[in-house]
Parts: sequence; structure tokens; C-alpha cells
Amino acid sequence: MKPLILITNDDSISAPGLRYLVDCVKDFGEIYVVAPDEQHSGQSSAFTVSVPLRVTGHEGYEGARVFSVNGTPVDCVKLAMHHIVPRRPDIVLSGVNHGSNAGNSVIYSGTMGAAFEGAMQGIPAVGFSLLHHSIKADFSECTPWVKAITRMVLENGLPEGVALNVNFPAKVKIKGVKVVRSARSRWTEEYKEYLDPHGKPFYLLTGDLVNEEPDSDETDLYWLDRDYASIVPVRADQNAIETIPALTAEIAGLKV
Amino acid sequence: MKPLILITNDDSISAPGLRYLVDCVKDFGEIYVVAPDEQHSGQSSAFTVSVPLRVTGHEGYEGARVFSVNGTPVDCVKLAMHHIVPRRPDIVLSGVNHGSNAGNSVIYSGTMGAAFEGAMQGIPAVGFSLLHHSIKADFSECTPWVKAITRMVLENGLPEGVALNVNFPAKVKIKGVKVVRSARSRWTEEYKEYLDPHGKPFYLLTGDLVNEEPDSDETDLYWLDRDYASIVPVRADQNAIETIPALTAEIAGLKV
Repeated sequence: MKPLILITNDDSISAPGLRYLVDCVKDFGEIYVVAPDEQHSGQSSAFTVSVPLRVTGHEGYEGARVFSVNGTPVDCVKLAMHHIVPRRPDIVLSGVNHGSNAGNSVIYSGTMGAAFEGAMQGIPAVGFSLLHHSIKADFSECTPWVKAITRMVLENGLPEGVALNVNFPAKVKIKGVKVVRSARSRWTEEYKEYLDPHGKPFYLLTGDLVNEEPDSDETDLYWLDRDYASIVPVRADQNAIETIPALTAEIAGLKV
Repeated sequence: MKPLILITNDDSISAPGLRYLVDCVKDFGEIYVVAPDEQHSGQSSAFTVSVPLRVTGHEGYEGARVFSVNGTPVDCVKLAMHHIVPRRPDIVLSGVNHGSNAGNSVIYSGTMGAAFEGAMQGIPAVGFSLLHHSIKADFSECTPWVKAITRMVLENGLPEGVALNVNFPAKVKIKGVKVVRSARSRWTEEYKEYLDPHGKPFYLLTGDLVNEEPDSDETDLYWLDRDYASIVPVRADQNAIETIPALTAEIAGLKV
């Protein structure tokens, strides 16, 4: 039986990066696309609690069955698993995202939220992102790597609970791929203040990602700056186990 | 100078658990509350990209300055840091959530999304949750622990990048507190299917959290079941560093 490949994203069903990803891998298996009907960047692992979710079928994707959901990337994976795919997917692919998910962006990323959801359900999962926000971004340099990484994960699987966060540099010939960790980084967040027509203020977020360890060649931001793609293995499990003994001692000393 | 305590939640500005948390800690410092204007359960680390964010001041909270934002818990922390608090907070508190954030719920939790945001900005952060969904939940058994844990973190700080996920059992005398890891667990997710007045289907998520290691006394679900509160140290950093060498070898073997 051909592998079942579940594809989603956070840029919505109409994003060119989604169609590109389908085209890359459509010969590798039976393709199901279940993607948000609207843009859901920055949605992390959010899911929908109380809004009725609806599934809409779409025609016109050669070689894929395509559905959209009025929800988040995580909603798409959950609903796909329970109501859409005919059997358990062999892999979850998310993207290709229009924009970076390197550095500490991974925790906010809807692209990676979908990948973590796959990993938590025991399915190997990969999120792909291109460091270019434009809807007209050129993905063609990524093609051999998207195919090779997908084939590798289909054949070998991934360690339990681990997903891959793959980022590609934009507008360059990709020099190679590095398996690294995400750089310690922070957003120089600022809110731009506006006045609405009634004179009341509102705010929109802006900012830049700052690499806090620019000289470390163990990180994704280092290699993306140098025209390499980065692969960061990430896990949904956020336990900080090594801190338990010292905290246990602190708690034991509390007077309650 | 008194410590500055930033308080948020995901159940909204009108949740009793928020007011309860303010009452617990209002003598410990200068209190700023910045919370979502609507329910944002299951919002993880989602933030708002393109909707104008507005800040509304609220009266009637003795001993606290109180604001709501039409956004997520993460939006509240970010916007508080940049436009509301007069100086850097000494601690971020989130909750008390009406419902559990134990087991693998932490990745979906808006309560913990706010705590991770604090931790990523270098501020000690604690999320509190009570295992009871009712809006009329009785938090009184939690009081000595909420106070003691907050005082401890104000005095000693937390390891870099680490936040605490504190869960309290409901409707019982709390036997004590255990510092543990979150249990490996999964949701038995099902979507209930409905028909709208036009005969079209829609779906709402339901399900139960299943503890996959019920006999392990190293986990939060084990102790919560036995009427203890749990403290799980968690980190925003999701790197699976130990998997890098084997993945590097796999990638090196790819034909691209």
C-alpha cells in the first residue's frame, strides 16, 4: 500500500507554498491535504474549543484529496485524523511556510504546531519554511531537499516524539543542509500605535528576531545566514527534568 | 521598591480564578493585571498578527491596576511589557485556570503560553490551574500554596528559561505538593458531529486525557489523582539536542 501523506500548513489552503509542497511529494504516496481556510500564522498549538468546525472539499489539485477547515493547523491535523483520512497517516508534512520558523519562532509557529500534533500522535512529522514572506516566493531551490528529507523520514521514521523544523534560505543556491539546534534568540518587539477614525488607539505588533549567540555554528540562524538550510529536531515534551531535584528541595523548605 | 507582579490568564478578565489570584498575592507587590477580554482556552502560544489590539482599563479591583486586551494570553504579556507596566515585572503569574493543565495539556494551554512568554523574556513565571472547570469552582484550598510558591519564586527566581506549571486537585484537602514531570499522556479525541439548521455537518471537539504511564510516581497525573498538587518545571526551548548526531549521519547519507 502506498504511504498516506497528510499535508497541512498555517498560511491557508490558498497559499502557493502548500501547493508547492503537494507537487513535490505527490508521487511518494496517497496525498490528503487538510489546511486552514484562512491565514493562521503565529497560532502555535492553538485549537478551537467552541466554534463549530466545518470541512469543505476542494477540486483542482491533481493527485491529492484536498479539504479546508475553518480552524487552526492543529484543528486540521486532529480533524483529519478523526474524520477525513481513511487510515493512519505515515507522515505529517506542514508548509512550505511563507516566512522563517527559525530561532525561537518555533514556539509561536502554526506550521510547527501542526508538526508537534503529528509527533504527539506518534506520526513522524516535518515542518518546512522558506525565509521569504512574499506570496510570490520562489521555492524551486528547495525541491531536492524537500523530496530527500520526506523520503528519508518515510523510510526511517523519526525518534519518538520528535518532529523536524526545516528552514530554507531564500533567493539563493542552497549550499547544503545542517542538523542543528535553534539559536537562543529574542524578538525586539514593539507595538506600533495607531489612532482609529474615532481617535482611539490600537496596536499592531512589529519587531525583529535577534540571534543572541551569533557566533555559534551549532545553530539554525548561523547556517541560514550562510545560505545553508537548517534541520532542527524538536519535541513537544517541554519538561525541564534536570531542574526537579533543586526545586524539590526548595519546596520542601516552604512554610505552608 | 515593591516587586511588580504581572498577572494574566486565558479564561478572560471576568474569570473568578483571575480575581482569586489577585486577591492571593496583592500584598506581595504592585499588581498589574492584563488579561484577554474573552475566553482563550487552548490558545497555546498563539499571538495576534493582523487584528488591531486595543487596551481597556477596568475599575473595581482593589489593590490592582487592571486592563483587558482583545487578544491571546501571549498578546497580553507582550503588550503589557511594552505599553502598560511602568517597569520590568519581577514575576509573571497566569491563572488560576478553571481546568487542568496537567499531562500533555501544557502544549495547548493558553495559561502556560503566557508563562512561557514570561520565561522567554527572562522573567520568572508560574501558571496555576485547578482541576475543576466550573466557573463556581472553590479555590480556597489552593491559597496557602499559591502564596508560598509565589513568595518562593519572587525570592529565589527560577532557572533560566524555566516556568512552573502548577496544578491543584479540586474539591479536596490538598495533601502536599510534588515537583514532578508531566505524564506521557494523550487525548482520546473525538469530534461530535452535528447538523446545522440547513442540514450541513459541523464538528465540536471532545475527549479525555489518558495517562499512558499510570503507575509512575514521577508524574503530575499520578499525584493529582492522589490529592496532591503538582509542580512541573517546563521550558520554552523544544530542542531535541540528543537526536542531532544520528540525524546528521542520516542526512549525510542522502543523495540530493
